[in-house]
Amino acid sequence: MSPLEPSEQAPGLLIGEGVQFGDGVELGGNVVIHPLTRIGNFCVIGDSAVIGRQPMLGRHSTASDEEQPAAKLADDSVICPGAVISAGAEIGPAAVVGDQTQVRERATIGAESVIGRGSAVDNDVSIGARVKVQSNCYVTAGSVIEDDVFLGPGVVLTNDNTMGRHEAGDPPDGPTLRRACRVGGGAVILPGVEVGEEAVIGAGAVVVDDVPARKVVVGVPARELRDVTEEEVLERWR
Amino acid sequence: MSPLEPSEQAPGLLIGEGVQFGDGVELGGNVVIHPLTRIGNFCVIGDSAVIGRQPMLGRHSTASDEEQPAAKLADDSVICPGAVISAGAEIGPAAVVGDQTQVRERATIGAESVIGRGSAVDNDVSIGARVKVQSNCYVTAGSVIEDDVFLGPGVVLTNDNTMGRHEAGDPPDGPTLRRACRVGGGAVILPGVEVGEEAVIGAGAVVVDDVPARKVVVGVPARELRDVTEEEVLERWR
Amino acid sequence: MSPLEPSEQAPGLLIGEGVQFGDGVELGGNVVIHPLTRIGNFCVIGDSAVIGRQPMLGRHSTASDEEQPAAKLADDSVICPGAVISAGAEIGPAAVVGDQTQVRERATIGAESVIGRGSAVDNDVSIGARVKVQSNCYVTAGSVIEDDVFLGPGVVLTNDNTMGRHEAGDPPDGPTLRRACRVGGGAVILPGVEVGEEAVIGAGAVVVDDVPARKVVVGVPARELRDVTEEEVLERWR
Repeated sequence: MSPLEPSEQAPGLLIGEGVQFGDGVELGGNVVIHPLTRIGNFCVIGDSAVIGRQPMLGRHSTASDEEQPAAKLADDSVICPGAVISAGAEIGPAAVVGDQTQVRERATIGAESVIGRGSAVDNDVSIGARVKVQSNCYVTAGSVIEDDVFLGPGVVLTNDNTMGRHEAGDPPDGPTLRRACRVGGGAVILPGVEVGEEAVIGAGAVVVDDVPARKVVVGVPARELRDVTEEEVLERWR
Repeated sequence: MSPLEPSEQAPGLLIGEGVQFGDGVELGGNVVIHPLTRIGNFCVIGDSAVIGRQPMLGRHSTASDEEQPAAKLADDSVICPGAVISAGAEIGPAAVVGDQTQVRERATIGAESVIGRGSAVDNDVSIGARVKVQSNCYVTAGSVIEDDVFLGPGVVLTNDNTMGRHEAGDPPDGPTLRRACRVGGGAVILPGVEVGEEAVIGAGAVVVDDVPARKVVVGVPARELRDVTEEEVLERWR
Repeated sequence: MSPLEPSEQAPGLLIGEGVQFGDGVELGGNVVIHPLTRIGNFCVIGDSAVIGRQPMLGRHSTASDEEQPAAKLADDSVICPGAVISAGAEIGPAAVVGDQTQVRERATIGAESVIGRGSAVDNDVSIGARVKVQSNCYVTAGSVIEDDVFLGPGVVLTNDNTMGRHEAGDPPDGPTLRRACRVGGGAVILPGVEVGEEAVIGAGAVVVDDVPARKVVVGVPARELRDVTEEEVLERWR
């Protein structure tokens, strides 16, 4: 038996039991909302979005198959067409999750952050407030992204130097991106790397070592080019 | 109130007011077509595609929230399953927009061009005729792509050297790709770069400077390797 | 006339004639299943997935437009929300096809393999058993991926050094990835490259030459760094 039923609330809507809607929610066409999902006031959900599905694991997956709590969309959040938000994800106030994106279980996205079209926020990721993740990025499991970070398009974060050859149960080793750092388009960041506050990574760089705060690094592998100037820091541009 | 209503014209179809259909249009299942969209003769629209939605902006977005004109699909165009085409986009005659792609407002795609699966064409992009954009590319806002250009898979174009720290209202500084240039898979092109006619960018290159016409560049950062030969130019292969 | 009809079997389901279901199949909401698709026992198909569509080619495509045989999902396979599987694709037992992925005609995916979220497996690709393709990868037409291979996130495979300027009918020249090799995140592999058994490609590398078995290569262009040790080979970690 499917946990979903057609609903008259919007065209093509399928909805599970116990979904909570705030005031003034707007729903597109053919939306799917799984049981118990909590949708805040004035949220907007685009066509064909899927909200609150339980994780779908293969028969041989070693990932936890425990039932996740309901997905939560805070007030004023916007979920664009074709996005897939798992149960156990939390979307912050006035955050925007772009077209055809994915946000997985136990990922949290802070207030006013934007996840660009086609990007993926994997499980167990923490994203702060006012973060901009541009299009086609991959934010790997276990990453920590602090407030005001900028990821350019096509950035790839990685979390496993062994590429699958480690003891079962080792936690993922996602990068840590400190407050207001900026990562150029197409950059690749290796497992466990910490990028300091207000640091800058050039487009296309491959970052194998930690990046100190307020340093600019470029190249493959990434090397220090210069310091970030006072004119470049975030406070200057708010 | 939703602007969409179920229609008997195709299974699972949701449609807005004033949509114009040409002759011989084929529709897949669960398609969503927003009001006033203009669909030319013999267009094919795949399952779960979303056509003509208005832009969905966050509460704090600085982008224009003005209503866009209807999306236009020219005769013989093909929109594949899961694609999302915004209001204000124009798809040219016999163009193909692949599975799970995105085409945004004020983007124009020329005749017989192909946008590969999973790629994104951002707002205010101009794409000429017979362009091939392969899979998983990101064509950033403000890019100009002339006729007969080839983008390999996973190419990333960027448009903001400041990564968000600039005066409000500065226009995006997307690259310009001149006629019949070719960009290898996974290459990254920096903001404002102009790639000359018939130039070639090697796979994985990071292009920080303009590339003269008929030059081949490779590497990080990209450097000139050789000239394009007479045997390689497009006229030889039509 | 559409080949699809609404079905009571699941909410929002559209289904074609002659679809075969095994025992215990689970279907999400708004799924589309095209005619003659064969779905094995205990398969799970997520919301808004599209299974078994015929290829959609542009009016000027040179690709074969012959009708493909039905898609086949083997027992225990899992197709996640928003995935698009073409007619002519074969998904192996207990394989997992992630959210928003694409698998095209004449691609075969072996037992227990996982295709990560947002990745694309193009036409005429052979993928073995227990392969892990992480998120946002592009596996180009004609690639051969043997058993136990690992592709990190954002990997790009390419198959045409001429970028479209070759004789009509030349077959695609996808890479060959031998048993148990591992490819780091964001790496780009050039056409026709063979990566040897148990070889390792570093994150962000651009691989222009064949990689011998059990060698580690890194950089742009990729160069040998060291041998893979006995402690790293797959047998040690099963």
